[in-house]
Amino acid sequence: MNATTINTPAGTPFVEVIREFDATPAQLFRIVTDKDLVVQWLGPRDLDATVEKYDVRPGGTYRYIHKDDSGEYAFRGVFHTVEQDKVIIQTFEWEGAPGEVCLEKMTLEPTEKGVRLHQQSVFPSVESRDQSIEYGMANGINDSMDRLAELLAKES
Amino acid sequence: MNATTINTPAGTPFVEVIREFDATPAQLFRIVTDKDLVVQWLGPRDLDATVEKYDVRPGGTYRYIHKDDSGEYAFRGVFHTVEQDKVIIQTFEWEGAPGEVCLEKMTLEPTEKGVRLHQQSVFPSVESRDQSIEYGMANGINDSMDRLAELLAKES
Repeated sequence: MNATTINTPAGTPFVEVIREFDATPAQLFRIVTDKDLVVQWLGPRDLDATVEKYDVRPGGTYRYIHKDDSGEYAFRGVFHTVEQDKVIIQTFEWEGAPGEVCLEKMTLEPTEKGVRLHQQSVFPSVESRDQSIEYGMANGINDSMDRLAELLAKES
Repeated sequence: MNATTINTPAGTPFVEVIREFDATPAQLFRIVTDKDLVVQWLGPRDLDATVEKYDVRPGGTYRYIHKDDSGEYAFRGVFHTVEQDKVIIQTFEWEGAPGEVCLEKMTLEPTEKGVRLHQQSVFPSVESRDQSIEYGMANGINDSMDRLAELLAKES
C-alpha cells in the first residue's frame, strides 16, 4: 500500500494531505463523489458512517454522521467547484463546533503509475486547526485514505 | 462617519474587517442580503457593478461583475451558513484566479449605539492574500463599507 502524507506546518491554519492510488482519475473521482461509495471509506474504521446527503455539484450540500458508543459526530458543507475527474472545492464544518468552517480543495492529478490525490484544507484559525489535530484528525485521514485504496482495489 | 478597521497580520492568510454602523442588525442584514441593495454598495466607487445572482441561503450561489474601461472582474461563491440578522458564511472566488477560493464569515453584533459588522476572510495561501492586498483590496473594502453606511442612512 502507498503511504499517506499529512503536512501541518506549525503556526498556520493549513492541512495538506497527499496520497497516490493505483487507479485512474475517473475511478478515483467516482469513488469520492458517489454517495453509496463515500459511505464505505469516509472516516475512521471504528466509527459507523451514515451519509445523509452528498450532492456533488456547485451549490450542492452534503451531511454525514459518524457514530460510536460514546456519541454522534455530524459534518456538513457545500460544494463550490466540481470539475469532473479533476477538482472539488467544498466547505467543511463539524457541527460540534458550529461556525468554525474550513475550506477544502481536492485535486486529482494523473501520474505515471496512477493518480495523486492532493487535498489542501484551510481552517478559520490556527487554534481551530491545532484543536482538530489534538482530536485525532490524522487517524481519521489515514483510515479514510487506506479504506479508499481498499475500495478502489475492489471496485476496479 | 465611523472608520473601517482592516487587519492583515503579516505571514498569515487572514483578513479581518471591522466597522460599526448606526443601524439595527436587522437593517444591516437586509442591506447585505437583498440583491437590489447589494448592487448599490458592493465594490469600489469607480466601478460599475452588476449583480447577476445573489441567492442568500445555505447552498445558494452568487455572482457579480465589476466593470470599468479597462475590463471586467467577476466574482462568485456559495453560501454555507445564513442566520437571520446574525451570521453569513460564504465562499468567495475572483474568476481571474480560478481555484483560489476564500472563506468569509460575516458576523453582526448589536452594540450600544448600533451594530458592529465583523468579517473574517481566510485565503487559500499567504501568497494569494498578499496578492489581493497588492491589487488594492483595501480600497474596495473601504469604499464598500462607506457606501454601505450611506445607503443605510438613506434606507433607514
